[in-house]
Amino acid sequence: MTPSTVCYRCDRTYRDTDRVRCDCGEPLWFDIDSHGFDLNDRGDGRGLSHYAGALPLSELEGLATAAGNTPLIRSQPLDEVAGCRVFVKDEGGNPTGSYKDRGSAIAVSRALDRSDNAVGTVSYGNMAMSTAAHAASRGRECVVLVPDDIPPGRLELIGQYDPTILRVEGDYGGLYDEVLELSRELPVSFLLSDAPGRISGYKTALFEIYEAMTPATPDAIALPASSGGFASGIWRGILDLQTAGVIDDPPRLYLVQTAASDPITRAFEADRDAVSALPPEDVGETIAHSIGNPDPPSGTRALTAVRETGGAVCSVTDDEIRTAKRQFARRSGFCVEPASAAPLAGVAQLTERGAIDRDESVVLVPTGTGFKEMGTGTEAVRTETVARSGLSSQLESRLST
Amino acid sequence: MTPSTVCYRCDRTYRDTDRVRCDCGEPLWFDIDSHGFDLNDRGDGRGLSHYAGALPLSELEGLATAAGNTPLIRSQPLDEVAGCRVFVKDEGGNPTGSYKDRGSAIAVSRALDRSDNAVGTVSYGNMAMSTAAHAASRGRECVVLVPDDIPPGRLELIGQYDPTILRVEGDYGGLYDEVLELSRELPVSFLLSDAPGRISGYKTALFEIYEAMTPATPDAIALPASSGGFASGIWRGILDLQTAGVIDDPPRLYLVQTAASDPITRAFEADRDAVSALPPEDVGETIAHSIGNPDPPSGTRALTAVRETGGAVCSVTDDEIRTAKRQFARRSGFCVEPASAAPLAGVAQLTERGAIDRDESVVLVPTGTGFKEMGTGTEAVRTETVARSGLSSQLESRLST
Ligand SMILES: [Zn+2]
Ligand SMILES: [Zn+2]
Repeated sequence: MTPSTVCYRCDRTYRDTDRVRCDCGEPLWFDIDSHGFDLNDRGDGRGLSHYAGALPLSELEGLATAAGNTPLIRSQPLDEVAGCRVFVKDEGGNPTGSYKDRGSAIAVSRALDRSDNAVGTVSYGNMAMSTAAHAASRGRECVVLVPDDIPPGRLELIGQYDPTILRVEGDYGGLYDEVLELSRELPVSFLLSDAPGRISGYKTALFEIYEAMTPATPDAIALPASSGGFASGIWRGILDLQTAGVIDDPPRLYLVQTAASDPITRAFEADRDAVSALPPEDVGETIAHSIGNPDPPSGTRALTAVRETGGAVCSVTDDEIRTAKRQFARRSGFCVEPASAAPLAGVAQLTERGAIDRDESVVLVPTGTGFKEMGTGTEAVRTETVARSGLSSQLESRLST
Repeated sequence: MTPSTVCYRCDRTYRDTDRVRCDCGEPLWFDIDSHGFDLNDRGDGRGLSHYAGALPLSELEGLATAAGNTPLIRSQPLDEVAGCRVFVKDEGGNPTGSYKDRGSAIAVSRALDRSDNAVGTVSYGNMAMSTAAHAASRGRECVVLVPDDIPPGRLELIGQYDPTILRVEGDYGGLYDEVLELSRELPVSFLLSDAPGRISGYKTALFEIYEAMTPATPDAIALPASSGGFASGIWRGILDLQTAGVIDDPPRLYLVQTAASDPITRAFEADRDAVSALPPEDVGETIAHSIGNPDPPSGTRALTAVRETGGAVCSVTDDEIRTAKRQFARRSGFCVEPASAAPLAGVAQLTERGAIDRDESVVLVPTGTGFKEMGTGTEAVRTETVARSGLSSQLESRLST
């Protein structure tokens, strides 16, 4: 199947499926007709291939078959924090620990199926790990462009999959257009945050949410937002299910950004139609590395998704994120990365403001596992020391209080 | 449902389901009749509750609903290393990153459903994290006994779920019998590696393997082995499917231990009937923390499983484990913990020896994610530095070679 790509904004379609951007400047996605799509009529395949009818490829192999199929759990102890009925869609269970595997499963597979090119990406986080791992499982080459000052821990996580890692000296943030150009000239397919194949992969998270909750439906879905790619995919999934007649009213889409770098929040609050890049002086440091993008390629599309679904965008501080990360672990048992804790803090804000009601069902999506960044031993942990001989009495006094 | 417990060796049954050991000294498991069990007639539930008919409880909530349902992938690039047809059952996708969640989902849930007791465990690794997380998601108390010299990274991983952590001074390895005793006297249910509920949870990994491969079946399954609990669960799953008439010939069970602490390998090689504790002078250091148990509570049961299925037990060195861990990442895209890499190294040994044929299908089970221990930045990674202006020519020369 070789579908066209289409622009969500001006409806222009393109036969060249390597094309990423419309002439109008906005990112493209695949134009797959979902009129006949039946969420319950799935093949035998596990994970994404269940939804082959809505995807731009049908056969998956290797690591791509392990992506998706993550759990959705009802987490009552989080209700008190969020102020509504909380469901958690844990994307940390993906094979490289983040939702990026859904995108790589489709985008990397498509690229490798269609040519002998290497694949490449520009990332020093989850997208780099995921792209490298998916290429590795197919025995194919991967090029990862990282900033020269990449932290050694990240390098280790990416390097384990043995891609070619190039540290780029100079303006790393501005590489986007250049590598899309290089993809046309060299035997490498760069797959960035808004590659149409990735967006197709992200749709499947939305399909899984509806399938897991049926016959109930979510009132809202809250995501961390950075490039806007994941939000675009979730929105496209909603549109597909509307076209297919599976749902009438879309769930409200809430995007949560880090206050240190929140161009989408600013555009939303200023009632602007488009998201513009933050000037460097408006970008701060944050523990939520995964959502620090000051110039999101799919930002305007994500903003449109929010407006069309009646949602909102908000920002949270690092302190709120730290607290939310602790609450995720202590009340739901999930170890999430800082960026992934943001939706809990954001939803707490939104219920406080009255945007979400107490009896509404809200799906929080922790997009990545916290295990990659933990275990360094820098966090203080309260313990008590007890002699083996005093264990019984110590336990007795602890448990009776 | 309150099934009895039964001894695999002498067939004695017990009504007291808090009982863990038979009078004969061997560990018990639940006596659930699987004659009518149909692998394909599953409820709507996701994960373990699909198999409720074979489990000692039917309703799960909170984190327990997120356990299991991990992917099985065919990984051709690993065939060359292993010398056979490789399938990977990635247990790292469980919510706390290891197969322990299958056991906690059943054992912790059962304990919390049946009394107001706290739960407890003796572990400073995956079992501690899993038990604490499952208790947290139910809003219940958990007590974790750790050795006084626990590494700070482990403490951080366990501590995030906010259990009561007691550092025990003195003989940590000998706590097993004492805490089972304490479970009878104090309002805390200690759930150790061979708690019958855990063994029931582990069965589901075997069910999932058969379900994913059907109509094909695995010739062998290779696991890392330490306490012998997981091997016991997999064996029990095999026995259930045999009773149910789903399979005729059992898959051969291969257990792989670290050469630094391999009591089950020694008993197997010496043709002994029982596994005995290694003397301290025979126990070495290893990077495979998760499988260093020199006195495995379910060791003899695991050895019996191997004999009954026509399998084998073997040991691998830390160097073999390091190499296998790299191969997992570079050839299948999975980031596994050192202990979880052991089965790949072990199977390579077994094919070399002729115990496994080239055309046989072997399921390797990495039992835990490698992300918990990575990202410290201590591993050297090869990179090249390139000026932004030279990116195109650098890529061109890299990709043409
Ligand atoms: Zn357009
Ligand atoms: Zn017995």
